[in-house]
Amino acid sequence: SRRYNITLLPGDGIGPEIMRVAVDVLKAVGTLEGIQFEFTEKLVGGAAIDAVGDPLPEDTLKSCKESDSVLLAAIGGYKWDKNPRELKPETGLLKLRAGLGVFANFRPATVFPQLVDASPLKNEIADSVDIMVVRELIGGIYFGTPRGFGTTINGDRTGFNTDIYSAEEVDRIARVAFEMAQKRQRQLCSVDKANVLEVSQLWRERVTAIGAEYPDVNLTHMYVDNAAMQLIRNPKQFDTIVTSNLFGDILSDEASMITGSIGMLPSASISASGPGLYEPIHGSAPDIAGQDKANPLAQVLSVAMLLRFGLGEATAADRIEAAVMDALHRGYRTGDIMSDGKTLVGCCKMGEILLEAL
Amino acid sequence: SRRYNITLLPGDGIGPEIMRVAVDVLKAVGTLEGIQFEFTEKLVGGAAIDAVGDPLPEDTLKSCKESDSVLLAAIGGYKWDKNPRELKPETGLLKLRAGLGVFANFRPATVFPQLVDASPLKNEIADSVDIMVVRELIGGIYFGTPRGFGTTINGDRTGFNTDIYSAEEVDRIARVAFEMAQKRQRQLCSVDKANVLEVSQLWRERVTAIGAEYPDVNLTHMYVDNAAMQLIRNPKQFDTIVTSNLFGDILSDEASMITGSIGMLPSASISASGPGLYEPIHGSAPDIAGQDKANPLAQVLSVAMLLRFGLGEATAADRIEAAVMDALHRGYRTGDIMSDGKTLVGCCKMGEILLEAL
Ligand SMILES: CC(C)[C@H](C(=O)O)[C@@H](O)C(=O)O
Ligand SMILES: CC(C)[C@H](C(=O)O)[C@@H](O)C(=O)O
Repeated sequence: SRRYNITLLPGDGIGPEIMRVAVDVLKAVGTLEGIQFEFTEKLVGGAAIDAVGDPLPEDTLKSCKESDSVLLAAIGGYKWDKNPRELKPETGLLKLRAGLGVFANFRPATVFPQLVDASPLKNEIADSVDIMVVRELIGGIYFGTPRGFGTTINGDRTGFNTDIYSAEEVDRIARVAFEMAQKRQRQLCSVDKANVLEVSQLWRERVTAIGAEYPDVNLTHMYVDNAAMQLIRNPKQFDTIVTSNLFGDILSDEASMITGSIGMLPSASISASGPGLYEPIHGSAPDIAGQDKANPLAQVLSVAMLLRFGLGEATAADRIEAAVMDALHRGYRTGDIMSDGKTLVGCCKMGEILLEAL
Repeated sequence: SRRYNITLLPGDGIGPEIMRVAVDVLKAVGTLEGIQFEFTEKLVGGAAIDAVGDPLPEDTLKSCKESDSVLLAAIGGYKWDKNPRELKPETGLLKLRAGLGVFANFRPATVFPQLVDASPLKNEIADSVDIMVVRELIGGIYFGTPRGFGTTINGDRTGFNTDIYSAEEVDRIARVAFEMAQKRQRQLCSVDKANVLEVSQLWRERVTAIGAEYPDVNLTHMYVDNAAMQLIRNPKQFDTIVTSNLFGDILSDEASMITGSIGMLPSASISASGPGLYEPIHGSAPDIAGQDKANPLAQVLSVAMLLRFGLGEATAADRIEAAVMDALHRGYRTGDIMSDGKTLVGCCKMGEILLEAL
């Protein structure tokens, strides 16, 4: 029977509650499919800062690197917002991404037919939107140097960062994006700001060059300001989007909000060879933490992505996705996606419903 | 009687057609209000590249600097998209902004009650949205150095840009934004990515410091990815937004799209002392250029902003805004904002209707 080591990173806020549900689901599907999981739970983010004074303890990164896949819940909270950068939960997450080399971040923005009313967009615009944002995750302005603070010749203080990509970095994310587009509708839109930035000019050149290797995919280019508009005006024009770390941060959040169900959206981050990192798109929601109100479905769907992309266990992934659909179909909703005539449930209860559905 | 020199920059695509309407309206309101305008028309963008091989001829910048206000229509088009950076229409625009020192860009995103159906957002979300985005316009990654192309130690090609702000640059845009918020609902939201970028940390520190001078304005901070979501989820939570050049480019376009009437939105860019630059938010729409289909209302409302902010002629500005409202109220629509039961008109005809309304 197949055995996998999974490192669990519950993190902060609602992280631990949604992680519990996800682990229960993973165990249940393991039993059904004859897969054994060995779990190692580690600290990251604010929880790690509080416990050992480091948002990514060495021991956590080591365990992640040695496992087959890493399942993260959420990090951050008001409590650590004023900390210096080295002691921010976010810094732990960025170091984890860099440490694992997970350069490709997949963020699906799917409108679930049962939840179209929850979209802020008019129903006919939101209806059946299905976008995959492929975001470069360990380069660009997030990691570029030089960075820091300085002084102008007039003695004025400055803050600065460097947005930089190498051809190789663009090539590898482009390839992954073209391959994703091949599995979808074969439409790839590359987003940049090549009319102003040199870093974007290189981006556009390289994506175009790699495109020659994928003649079956229709490649288009769009400026980031226009993309921010088009995602609202007519999101159905998009199939797969590939973009830089910063633009991907902004556009994937925008895309997820148009679905109206950000509590439903998972993500996967993969590297060239090592373990991938799977996490919901939403944050740690400190305001509802510990109240059994959180929606665990994005975390559960992240488990499905882990099974599919990380472990190649497509049948197990299908089972989980079907269980989620079944729960929605039977009318169960957490507070964030509640609507008239549906049954409001808490985080634990939603977990039980999923186990039943499995 | 008052006399003003206005430099007109019709630019490319639909620019010349909408400029003609705007100038007619300006002349008419001048007659009514006893104001004399002297117009000087100059080349910029693609038109200037074609004529003299420079997207911002010296003579154009000189005329702009010597005038009381500058009215720009739109620049750019597919034709020049493959040009090297020095010969792109966009480069002319960036040089014009820098040359005039117009550091503060005001971009209102207003949902016109008559046009709420045109918003991609559900009506109850879009209804009565009224946001002013204050974008820093001559700093940040658009102008930061070093920038260009390089090679890594492995011989891999790179493209890079520098995102940099000085305390002084942040302070001056913050002051302008607080003053704008004072004239509005006294809510200022500063948008940055201070959890990742040092340039944003400086931004947040300085905006907070300047906030102490404006105790009557409620200052909040938001990360740019969250702002991209919140603008869609609940745009009514925003009154005035202040942000950097790049984030402002993205968010102001997103905000204008939620109104559903981007053909209606003007903008103003002001400097510390010299003439301001007034232009519609929309682009040059080369696909409909010369067909008398363009919506001239954003250009006309830019004239109103020019009168109000640039020349202090508030009564004349009021007259123009009232004429636009009147035309909408009477059911006249260009193609971009057309809906059932309204009267479709072309660009020229809309101009005649405005003159009538005046
Ligand atoms: C928490 C933050 C550092 C992170 C990012 O900017 O990448 C988050 O917004 C995300 O998108 O995962
Ligand atoms: C044309 C381009 C250089 C410009 C910008 O990015 O500033 C435009 O998008 C705008 O927002 O005015």
